[in-house]
Amino acid sequence: MTHPSSSPVSIVTGGAGFIAVNLIGRLLDAGHAVLAADNLCRGRRDYLEPFASHPALRFVEADLSDRAQCARAFAAASELGRPTEVWHLAANSDIPAGGADPDIDLKDTFLTTFEILRAMRDGSVGTLHFASSSAVYGDHGDAELHESIGPLLPISNYGAMKLASEAQAGAAAESFLERVNLFRFPNVVGVPATHGVLLDFVRKLKRTPGSLDVLGDGTQQKAYLHVSDLVDAMLHVRATKPQGKVLPINIGPIDAGVHVRWIAEQVIARVAPSATIRYGLGNKGWVGDVPRFRYSTQAIADLGWKPSLDSSGAVTRAIDEIARQEGIPEGGLA
Amino acid sequence: MTHPSSSPVSIVTGGAGFIAVNLIGRLLDAGHAVLAADNLCRGRRDYLEPFASHPALRFVEADLSDRAQCARAFAAASELGRPTEVWHLAANSDIPAGGADPDIDLKDTFLTTFEILRAMRDGSVGTLHFASSSAVYGDHGDAELHESIGPLLPISNYGAMKLASEAQAGAAAESFLERVNLFRFPNVVGVPATHGVLLDFVRKLKRTPGSLDVLGDGTQQKAYLHVSDLVDAMLHVRATKPQGKVLPINIGPIDAGVHVRWIAEQVIARVAPSATIRYGLGNKGWVGDVPRFRYSTQAIADLGWKPSLDSSGAVTRAIDEIARQEGIPEGGLA
Repeated sequence: MTHPSSSPVSIVTGGAGFIAVNLIGRLLDAGHAVLAADNLCRGRRDYLEPFASHPALRFVEADLSDRAQCARAFAAASELGRPTEVWHLAANSDIPAGGADPDIDLKDTFLTTFEILRAMRDGSVGTLHFASSSAVYGDHGDAELHESIGPLLPISNYGAMKLASEAQAGAAAESFLERVNLFRFPNVVGVPATHGVLLDFVRKLKRTPGSLDVLGDGTQQKAYLHVSDLVDAMLHVRATKPQGKVLPINIGPIDAGVHVRWIAEQVIARVAPSATIRYGLGNKGWVGDVPRFRYSTQAIADLGWKPSLDSSGAVTRAIDEIARQEGIPEGGLA
Repeated sequence: MTHPSSSPVSIVTGGAGFIAVNLIGRLLDAGHAVLAADNLCRGRRDYLEPFASHPALRFVEADLSDRAQCARAFAAASELGRPTEVWHLAANSDIPAGGADPDIDLKDTFLTTFEILRAMRDGSVGTLHFASSSAVYGDHGDAELHESIGPLLPISNYGAMKLASEAQAGAAAESFLERVNLFRFPNVVGVPATHGVLLDFVRKLKRTPGSLDVLGDGTQQKAYLHVSDLVDAMLHVRATKPQGKVLPINIGPIDAGVHVRWIAEQVIARVAPSATIRYGLGNKGWVGDVPRFRYSTQAIADLGWKPSLDSSGAVTRAIDEIARQEGIPEGGLA
């Protein structure tokens, strides 16, 4: 162990996942030691390969919904120095899977939060940064989703267990935490891509380059943020230290988003330019999928942050990154 | 079994508890068969004594956070007829206990909800009436707590697990339930009293009739509803069948509530008229106790319901009922 033991230590859960891999480099660059913990169900150890030789990074394979394994991960963090914050990014990210089997979201999304909070109390770790979701809002029709809207009625088990996690973390701030940031993520795109509509489309085209089947009629509209902007936003909020102990805050692009139809066209242009698109019926892709929403980012704008890419820029960049990840040559498959 | 097997069956969880005992008589009178399930941690079998000979009531001792025991309770309900609704009243009601050990609220409040929802899906039971709480709102200062306020940041594990239950039930309505009423209870008083400030005060005075120690400075203000009005409100909402599948709705008195100081004086007047009151410091009784709030009951008023007793009327009636429950003679102990 060559790094100074006086470094502040950041614990990153879901530490081998999509968001974490993009965050950890920034934390290491800022002089933090990092304990990355992941159950490797969806995350992959090789995503951390770029930092493998960094002396201030340690990886622990652990199911954080298990009390003993969670305690073991926190103990490993203490060997690196004094843990000061947890970035809690571990969750089930497969919304339809959690719809079919509620146990998945219970265990991987909520019980991880529950056990991490216990470990933070036991280890006197004061700050939690939580990867919450726009899914906590549910379907408010055309109303703008700002942080003060109610009621909060998620329509998926995924959203329900994110809201449950927010609630438990907020209560913990009342009794033992110093600071809780509840970052409500939009749809985030980039690499390493593990799931989501862009990766689905790219992989479908890889299998059948002549046509692309789209769930729903393509009129669903969603806002997308590039993962680099997401990490930037979280670090900005952390640095500004807004008033109050608990801050629920939307992170997202300023625009209203792009349509699935447009996304399908962009993926085809990059991956298989001669493919045709076949649409399904209705404007919901699957149970729990909110067809469109207007997402207020005024609160984070008031803290002085704005994204560098809008939804179309984020999607275009991510399609190219994912195409390269999946081995699609420049110019596409055709 | 002498009742008609064609009766609609109501499953009442927490079925040997304070609220259930007051609800079950009304359901039986309306011709429902009732399956009451309770783990008997806080509820008591003898509370159901008044209905013991009723052929349409069956009691099952079960820990509903346990999947197999929950399934067993639902199977017992099916033996009575066709279960059409669940009144989910089971929860940890001891807020400080849940603050000290979060496992209590997790298991008794949230995991009961989680398993009941699974059993409702498996058994095609379409309607859930859930005993939620004003505690889901958290501390909004002087803002009026109406159903559309946000963010929802409970300050106790009790409130957090009530909000988590609301979230999971709402998501279930999106995929398999027909109707979910999220009844947000105020402080409810009446008998059989198992916990709460009135019972605390009465029992303290029974032990030491000369003086009463009050947590906090007595300036905390809370709204109280009598349990008879609470049951009436829930049955009213059920009968009016408001639009939408999921209805979060506040139930409470119209007034802003009464102060702890006033309550202490009323308890003394009934139980031990010559006692003196000794106050503590601060306006929070314990961690997780919201000192005061303004609770909007406009939504339920718009549905045509209003309470028969205000906070002071409910408290005065309940003090007398609790005093009798505890064996205090008319005129008090002195």
